[in-house]
Amino acid sequence: MDLDAQIEWMLETTLAGTESPAAPPKLAAALRHAVFPGGARVRPKLCLAVAAACSDDDDLTPALAAGAAIELLHCASLVHDDLPCFDDADMRRGRASVHAGYGEPIAVLAGDALIALSFAVLADHAGAALPDLVRILGQATCPPHGIAAGQAWESETEIRLDDYHHAKTAALFVASTTAGAASVGADPARWQPLGEALGAAYQTADDLRDALLPASALGKPASQDAKHERPSAVEQYGVRGALKKLSDQIDSAAESVPDCAGAPALRTLVFAQAKRLAPDSLARRFA
Amino acid sequence: MDLDAQIEWMLETTLAGTESPAAPPKLAAALRHAVFPGGARVRPKLCLAVAAACSDDDDLTPALAAGAAIELLHCASLVHDDLPCFDDADMRRGRASVHAGYGEPIAVLAGDALIALSFAVLADHAGAALPDLVRILGQATCPPHGIAAGQAWESETEIRLDDYHHAKTAALFVASTTAGAASVGADPARWQPLGEALGAAYQTADDLRDALLPASALGKPASQDAKHERPSAVEQYGVRGALKKLSDQIDSAAESVPDCAGAPALRTLVFAQAKRLAPDSLARRFA
Repeated sequence: MDLDAQIEWMLETTLAGTESPAAPPKLAAALRHAVFPGGARVRPKLCLAVAAACSDDDDLTPALAAGAAIELLHCASLVHDDLPCFDDADMRRGRASVHAGYGEPIAVLAGDALIALSFAVLADHAGAALPDLVRILGQATCPPHGIAAGQAWESETEIRLDDYHHAKTAALFVASTTAGAASVGADPARWQPLGEALGAAYQTADDLRDALLPASALGKPASQDAKHERPSAVEQYGVRGALKKLSDQIDSAAESVPDCAGAPALRTLVFAQAKRLAPDSLARRFA
Repeated sequence: MDLDAQIEWMLETTLAGTESPAAPPKLAAALRHAVFPGGARVRPKLCLAVAAACSDDDDLTPALAAGAAIELLHCASLVHDDLPCFDDADMRRGRASVHAGYGEPIAVLAGDALIALSFAVLADHAGAALPDLVRILGQATCPPHGIAAGQAWESETEIRLDDYHHAKTAALFVASTTAGAASVGADPARWQPLGEALGAAYQTADDLRDALLPASALGKPASQDAKHERPSAVEQYGVRGALKKLSDQIDSAAESVPDCAGAPALRTLVFAQAKRLAPDSLARRFA
């Protein structure tokens, strides 16, 4: 089974474990809707790539569980971010968002269950890495630097921009790189800078895509940053400035890959992901 | 430090770990509001009582962490249950609910962070019991039997009453008894029936209190079951029937305490809690 299929298998197995005739059907359907079909599964792929770069071991089950955990957390954040009290977005990945399809109560509960499930999947598969992985996942979610803090900055009148962007987007990239290392017994701290750099690049790319692409290409509502008056790289630097920043951030990410046997392959992955982040059409249009 | 103080200390330490100048202030304040001052801390006390009954070890740190984790999960469920899309309750524990005090977005995020924090606290203190405790906490939250499933039954047109009550209330009592046992290396399964029985009694008592006590005595809006057309023991059996049921359930809980050195003390605790559950004024009024 290739890695993509293994990621889907781990997510499928985890969700199947919550399903039963004793469970309320709408919540079960909403959980599937939130997780399948997924997006690019960038975070679990990154987690597995780091684990593979750190270890010769063929059994990457703990990294697979960590990657699935981070993806479930990511799905939870999308479900809650789309709620009426945040983005009020009816579309996600080209179809109804969870609250649009199943109602607001079920969307709140689906996000809650996905957060808990992201930890639960670790209990069964993480082995000796469990304490580190639970800690990493907790930090990725909770204040001061986790995604809940990132979203909460939007309720403040004075936003600390670096903290906001770091927590909103980089947190799950840092979780992906550090969890990948921790899952094979390597030092997570060495892999934090790569996560930070990729998170920063991803945030800039996301700001560009939000500002420049139509809803049909995004699969979700466009121009949300401007609509919700959120600080963004496009607002701050203009489109050309943001594209330049993105290019610098991608170089910086490639340089952040620590020395290890798998470093060259990882750098290649970073550049391949970067091509996805900044579609050629955008780069050409504003060259 | 007595056990009550130790529980508060563990909760305080856990929350303090999320606080930093880099964190958004409103979310930090909302988290404190959700956790302090607490209610009766019934679940962590039960968790510690079971751990003490199963072990001669003076160091109950893993049980303390498990109890705090379950209390944080309980607080998360209260914050989300009070949201406008569920109970729309402005009062909780005699003061503003989190969404009434800090707004709906912060209330959603506070609940999210508390769920993650409940797992994170285990990573630092659970020791060898970590896999079992993460698993128990996951089951207490996720479908099919966790609290998210319990709340989700309210979005179904056909409610399976036993599954609904079990998941809504008993889940965290089962978590408390089984986590208490697991935290000291005892068999969690032996302690499940006690959690089930206490959860059932607590649900009946809660239905009675909701139906019969004024908001001033509850510290939250009264008659919510009738208002939201939720199935309740009072609606099903009438007040006298529900009181009789509660009394039977308390006896059944005392009988569910497994044989162990600490069994007599635990049975005493069950009856003491029972007195709190069914205030004399209620029992007398409908005797």
